[in-house]
Amino acid sequence: MAFVRDAARAAEQIKKWLQQRLRETGRQEYILGLSGGIDSALAAYMVVDALGADALYCVLLPYRTSSPDSLGDAQHIVKELGVQSRVVDITAMADAFEAQTGEMSPVRRGNLCARLRMVTLFDQSHAKGLVLGTSNKTETLLGYGTLNGDAAWSLNPLGDLYKTDVRLLAKYHHVPQAIQDKIPSADLWHGQTDEGELGHSYAEIDTLLVKMVDEKQSRAQILADGTDPKLVDRVLSLIRGSAFKRQAPPIAWLSQPFDATHVEDPRW
Amino acid sequence: MAFVRDAARAAEQIKKWLQQRLRETGRQEYILGLSGGIDSALAAYMVVDALGADALYCVLLPYRTSSPDSLGDAQHIVKELGVQSRVVDITAMADAFEAQTGEMSPVRRGNLCARLRMVTLFDQSHAKGLVLGTSNKTETLLGYGTLNGDAAWSLNPLGDLYKTDVRLLAKYHHVPQAIQDKIPSADLWHGQTDEGELGHSYAEIDTLLVKMVDEKQSRAQILADGTDPKLVDRVLSLIRGSAFKRQAPPIAWLSQPFDATHVEDPRW
Repeated sequence: MAFVRDAARAAEQIKKWLQQRLRETGRQEYILGLSGGIDSALAAYMVVDALGADALYCVLLPYRTSSPDSLGDAQHIVKELGVQSRVVDITAMADAFEAQTGEMSPVRRGNLCARLRMVTLFDQSHAKGLVLGTSNKTETLLGYGTLNGDAAWSLNPLGDLYKTDVRLLAKYHHVPQAIQDKIPSADLWHGQTDEGELGHSYAEIDTLLVKMVDEKQSRAQILADGTDPKLVDRVLSLIRGSAFKRQAPPIAWLSQPFDATHVEDPRW
Repeated sequence: MAFVRDAARAAEQIKKWLQQRLRETGRQEYILGLSGGIDSALAAYMVVDALGADALYCVLLPYRTSSPDSLGDAQHIVKELGVQSRVVDITAMADAFEAQTGEMSPVRRGNLCARLRMVTLFDQSHAKGLVLGTSNKTETLLGYGTLNGDAAWSLNPLGDLYKTDVRLLAKYHHVPQAIQDKIPSADLWHGQTDEGELGHSYAEIDTLLVKMVDEKQSRAQILADGTDPKLVDRVLSLIRGSAFKRQAPPIAWLSQPFDATHVEDPRW
């Protein structure tokens, strides 16, 4: 799919999917790490729309350097939606880690924090919940996420939405305007912004990704269109450098990969 | 594949695979969590056989309740192979977590420890290494492992080996006899043994798994063979209950799953 044209239709599709997945697994609720950003906010509004406030448990996961505004925005969403929530500050865990391994670079610490958040969410989902992922299609294609961190989840309602689509659906679901208007940031270190790190706006990147990935245009076509060659090279390098994140991690197969689906079938 | 018949041939296949994967990715070394058990020990011997001692970095990851013998056995392997290693005790991290979430059941704490080990290994692999997985085929089929914990890795040399095959190859690679003879345990709590938890021996389970999964025998055939029906039910329940661990976590696709492999291709 390229961009979502009909917000109501896409919202309805995801709503049914959220209802069906919870029913199928027999779990009671979705667990969501609420960052205060637009992606997890949208996921929260979608779940409450699909299944009511009782079906969502939000975990707020600040770290020492997280912006206090992020926590405030997350708390605002919790209050507005009337969902259950708790705060788990990951600073003590991260400090306990760094005390053993030595001080780390901001990128490495960012990966550590993303993974400690995953650890917390999966622990909190123990025996009753399913952890919602919020990696969108733009992030997945660019590899803009931490393996076994924010890129690890039980199921993901946003995975087929570009950032551009997330914005459209956030508007449709009446996510608070202040959250819709925030500058996107992984908030892993002070002053970080997604678009600063990526070097281009999401609007530019998504327009190019649709051409490259969905429409399967050639490089020549795209450049003839007037697209900045620097943007093409940057996006291409991110896509190629993150290919391993989109593949199943390799196994040393001695013959064929094994498959147990026939035994999983209740008719066996 | 059913059981490995020719240890030398399987060892050679995995050796070439380990050499090739490291070369392809341009990384310098493999990172391995060494528990003192037979699976990670075998992985260590395989890497050193394939690429020499410089290509392996072992991390020993004890927790408060880990058996001191486990650490001793892991240190013995490090010494015998002459590989680089470090100890990262995960107790402080786990304590920092429990201080916030409250005391947990042994199973939940076991999952927490498995995930904190993953966090440590992926951190230690930062920018230069690839994290080796040691989940074998028996564990994968039974779901005997923690999602985003020991079941998360960059690549896995043991993934197509039943526990029975791991034992054969450990013998072939001259893994220390004491480690070959140990009673298998995830060592997540005191006195835990795999076979105690599973209720049957690995020999029985693997023999059944070959019939069910590889030979695709029917239930009637298997029971006519004299297999204990309780064993069949137990294994079936583990396979079905862990199906979600063997599948890619679901995404709410609005149309077709997207695919960027044509752009990843250098000819694009």
